[in-house]
Amino acid sequence: MAADIAEQPAGYARLLDATHAGAIARVAAIIAQRRPRHVVFTARGTSDHAALYAAYLTEIRLGLPAGLASPSAVTVFGARPDLSDALVVGVSQSGGSPDLTEVLRTARESGALTLAVTNAPDSPLVETAELAIDIAAGHERAVAATKTYTAELLALLMLVEGIRAGDGVLPATERAVMDTLPELAARTLDDPTATTLAPRYRFAARLVTTGRGYAYPTAREAALKLMETSYLPALAFSGADLLHGPLAMTDPDVPVLAVVGSGPGGRSMAEVLTRLGERGADVLAVGSAPAGSTARLAVPEVDERYAPLLDILPMQRLALALALARGEDPDAPRGLKKVTATM
Amino acid sequence: MAADIAEQPAGYARLLDATHAGAIARVAAIIAQRRPRHVVFTARGTSDHAALYAAYLTEIRLGLPAGLASPSAVTVFGARPDLSDALVVGVSQSGGSPDLTEVLRTARESGALTLAVTNAPDSPLVETAELAIDIAAGHERAVAATKTYTAELLALLMLVEGIRAGDGVLPATERAVMDTLPELAARTLDDPTATTLAPRYRFAARLVTTGRGYAYPTAREAALKLMETSYLPALAFSGADLLHGPLAMTDPDVPVLAVVGSGPGGRSMAEVLTRLGERGADVLAVGSAPAGSTARLAVPEVDERYAPLLDILPMQRLALALALARGEDPDAPRGLKKVTATM
Repeated sequence: MAADIAEQPAGYARLLDATHAGAIARVAAIIAQRRPRHVVFTARGTSDHAALYAAYLTEIRLGLPAGLASPSAVTVFGARPDLSDALVVGVSQSGGSPDLTEVLRTARESGALTLAVTNAPDSPLVETAELAIDIAAGHERAVAATKTYTAELLALLMLVEGIRAGDGVLPATERAVMDTLPELAARTLDDPTATTLAPRYRFAARLVTTGRGYAYPTAREAALKLMETSYLPALAFSGADLLHGPLAMTDPDVPVLAVVGSGPGGRSMAEVLTRLGERGADVLAVGSAPAGSTARLAVPEVDERYAPLLDILPMQRLALALALARGEDPDAPRGLKKVTATM
Repeated sequence: MAADIAEQPAGYARLLDATHAGAIARVAAIIAQRRPRHVVFTARGTSDHAALYAAYLTEIRLGLPAGLASPSAVTVFGARPDLSDALVVGVSQSGGSPDLTEVLRTARESGALTLAVTNAPDSPLVETAELAIDIAAGHERAVAATKTYTAELLALLMLVEGIRAGDGVLPATERAVMDTLPELAARTLDDPTATTLAPRYRFAARLVTTGRGYAYPTAREAALKLMETSYLPALAFSGADLLHGPLAMTDPDVPVLAVVGSGPGGRSMAEVLTRLGERGADVLAVGSAPAGSTARLAVPEVDERYAPLLDILPMQRLALALALARGEDPDAPRGLKKVTATM
């Protein structure tokens, strides 16, 4: 898992090289030309969080409605929604889950434009979809996905910005920010704070994570990583949903991990942080604007749209270090396999 | 909270009376005539679970793509998705949350057909939307929503079946099943098993809930009710997502609450239950087919499509009884207000 985590800056650089960026640009240009009216994402587990990030990007950057489909409506209940106006995107590290393949197959039959985003160019999902993007993250050794998650994020970001450009080619300003990501990711991973903080949570019985907008997928993925590797029950809430009920559950014994960037999403967390403070919550703030909290994990400042590509990195290191501190083996989580086949 | 729970059979009967059923049928007929190409739901907290149920219904019964919108894309990041092909449905007990009102306002401006489903006919959400449905649940006394949740479920079911019929009028076969719901709900609430089981979870540190398809919203809502009233951290997973990672977290000390009906959704839970059994999990099965588990909460058998209207009832009673057993006041959860305003 440590090796997978360390490869992420190189993974960003690889996706940005001419070969991979060119392949994504060609897919983006085809999608832009076909003009879907809305976008449906389908994914499971970690990839579902990358899909959620892409759904925010789609709504905000493309002005297209975006949603996440529940595969079971199709695979268990036989739903055959008319997706002829839609782009349907399956996101899967392995490309091997039969339910996602079935969703893409029926979507394609109903006239949808279909796209598979995977780390497995020869997978059933890629064979089923009309278009495919290879996230090119290389073989992932650990069961808990890390480098495939961030490669999915960057590939989906490049795709959306390419569609927005119309011809698939990223504008120079976008490209300039993306080109800083390998270096910023390396710098973020060089910071030992996440590892240093891990012992603080050695005896935590549970944890709450929260974030809004682009930061919400990061909160969800951080919670999943902590559950998979440390078996620490971690509840993820959007900042708004936390105020609508589960806030009652927080108290000084429940650490809260809040993702707080320096844009509108981070500013909209101010009330959440205030209410958590009133309840005496112990808050670890992660991101570029981690003000007023018990503990901080500072991440280099980028536009909030890019922040998910950096903010998750210290969370992965925290999950790894906490698993080790708790005497668990993060490379062999109990009860899990690398490829999970569900229908 | 006990009084609110007890009123649910009467709530079903009221929604099914000529006045309320007629009002829903008129809205359904207008929507059927306008032929939206897809449906976007927006909601928070408990109402989000009713919206999730309606999204499954929309895909399976209407063959229309359905998704749940994140209000923050619109309210925090300024997204203005083109929703001119869409029906956009805001679901809210109070109709008072500014973010949902803003989502419906911008959707209507972009040409969407908009609908507010609320328990508050004079609310801002109703004023903003083109169409409105009053769930007519009466004043809800407790902070934790119970009778407004099930009234939302039934109103949305009547709406979807009315749209499917084309003229808004429920087919006799549908109507016949719905007419049994008040009696079946009363019988379900008369069963004392949920209350009897509560002490078994007095010292549980946390809980996992799971279900698939139509049963997944029930699993989510059960988890939220337990969190709101008993401060018991409850993690909800679709059966498939549980296998994709969080299964590692289950062990004999973590009770699992599995919603298992007798249709395809329930059958698709078989592998989940087997894997939980292998890990020695303590499973409370709820629904009409609660086989092979440690503890059972049997609910009268209805088609899985209707099951969410009954399965949640013993979960509400369990949450109430467990809160009392833990010395908490379910009528005044700490840190919560009845109407939560978020942007």
